[in-house]
Amino acid sequence: MTNFETFLQLHHAEKPLLLGNAWDVASAKMLEQNGLKAIATSSAAVANTFGYKDGEHIPFDLLLQTVKRIKDNISVPLSVDMEGGFSRNVSKIIENVECLHDLGVAGINIEDSLKGDGFTMQPASVFQHILSSIAEHLAKRNMQMFINARTDAFVAKLPNALKETIARAKLYEAAGASGIFVPFVINRQDVAAIVAATKLPVNVFAMNGLPTFSELAALGIKRISMGSALYNAVKHNMQQSIETVLQEQSFKCLY
Amino acid sequence: MTNFETFLQLHHAEKPLLLGNAWDVASAKMLEQNGLKAIATSSAAVANTFGYKDGEHIPFDLLLQTVKRIKDNISVPLSVDMEGGFSRNVSKIIENVECLHDLGVAGINIEDSLKGDGFTMQPASVFQHILSSIAEHLAKRNMQMFINARTDAFVAKLPNALKETIARAKLYEAAGASGIFVPFVINRQDVAAIVAATKLPVNVFAMNGLPTFSELAALGIKRISMGSALYNAVKHNMQQSIETVLQEQSFKCLY
Repeated sequence: MTNFETFLQLHHAEKPLLLGNAWDVASAKMLEQNGLKAIATSSAAVANTFGYKDGEHIPFDLLLQTVKRIKDNISVPLSVDMEGGFSRNVSKIIENVECLHDLGVAGINIEDSLKGDGFTMQPASVFQHILSSIAEHLAKRNMQMFINARTDAFVAKLPNALKETIARAKLYEAAGASGIFVPFVINRQDVAAIVAATKLPVNVFAMNGLPTFSELAALGIKRISMGSALYNAVKHNMQQSIETVLQEQSFKCLY
Repeated sequence: MTNFETFLQLHHAEKPLLLGNAWDVASAKMLEQNGLKAIATSSAAVANTFGYKDGEHIPFDLLLQTVKRIKDNISVPLSVDMEGGFSRNVSKIIENVECLHDLGVAGINIEDSLKGDGFTMQPASVFQHILSSIAEHLAKRNMQMFINARTDAFVAKLPNALKETIARAKLYEAAGASGIFVPFVINRQDVAAIVAATKLPVNVFAMNGLPTFSELAALGIKRISMGSALYNAVKHNMQQSIETVLQEQSFKCLY
């Protein structure tokens, strides 16, 4: 099986796919060594390690270098968070997707919000066109990638977030997405309603209040992402270690 | 004051310089934000983030890229751990030092052991020649960098480690080193004997059994490095977080 086929199959198993989000080779290897069956990048975490804000501020070439290094150091499928596609031009987005494909990446996350200058939702039709253009291009070139379409009505805290998410999920499914990613949804009824609205595997995201993995499995969720939660926990702990070293004037806390 | 001048002064203050060892922009920024007055890279940690073993396996260009990014994101002086110099050829080592100088790096660590294929100590005369060649070249070009000469008799667990360290410290001082770095020394009497043997500021390294900073200050130590201890602690914590997520089948431990 190719990495793509393995990755696709992991989205249609009984147990949801737990996706380990990494930011460098070391974190990717550690997640793989702990048995995670697929690794993804977290755009926020990767950007932060290099001193950039999330929101496509990191040069795409630097992201590609990082992706290549991670890919070369793990065996399990790798999915790349490419935010809005690192361009507003559909041809350029497709070119970026092809670059990732050529590195051996099994899947992408692409999202309908833009974080460059404040947070805005792209019109559903615009993002639907991006998705269908990617899907048609990949099919034409016989390239296989899992297109995880991320929709951000819950991130945007829209008053009609559930309704908007369901409407967009249907459009994105029709456009050729392989999966629907809904970060920030935590309410069980909302999760169940989204799962019921699409045939595609639905993906949720680590955040305070998210049900346990077994509860999510029972609700029909097929993919559970760490997002930047592991990275944030690591940085929180690093901050505490530094404070302790400074307070105790000793390195003892590090051993 | 230039970064070099600030860095030099920090080695001759009453209170020893606590050096925060970073591996990427995020860790360097966090250390600076916590008040660390100078940042250094840890060769082991930088190599590990990119999936390389320590011992000059990381391409020097990749190290330079990382150094440049860190330099561009901090204001305090930056020192770079360049292991054995990333070449066995003195001219090439000098070229590598110049590259770091041109990035605005205030100091280097260069060590008399080689870790490429097993651990070996270079003859003292060979390393003394490397140091004097670097020092003379920098002086000729009016380039200022703090040359921290690391000597690894304690790392090598030589039976005569103290005697060998003192002999080498004197040779390296004569060769134009700015400071002497003795990792793995933890015994108070050994520390005091090394401090007494050289006029240069002496640097020790975080490891289990190292006295507290105030004890080290009383022994005359002028620089205390984290080495890879913070990185190792961060990775240890990351491993525990991943295990807890897998055991609890929930992300709760990350919030």
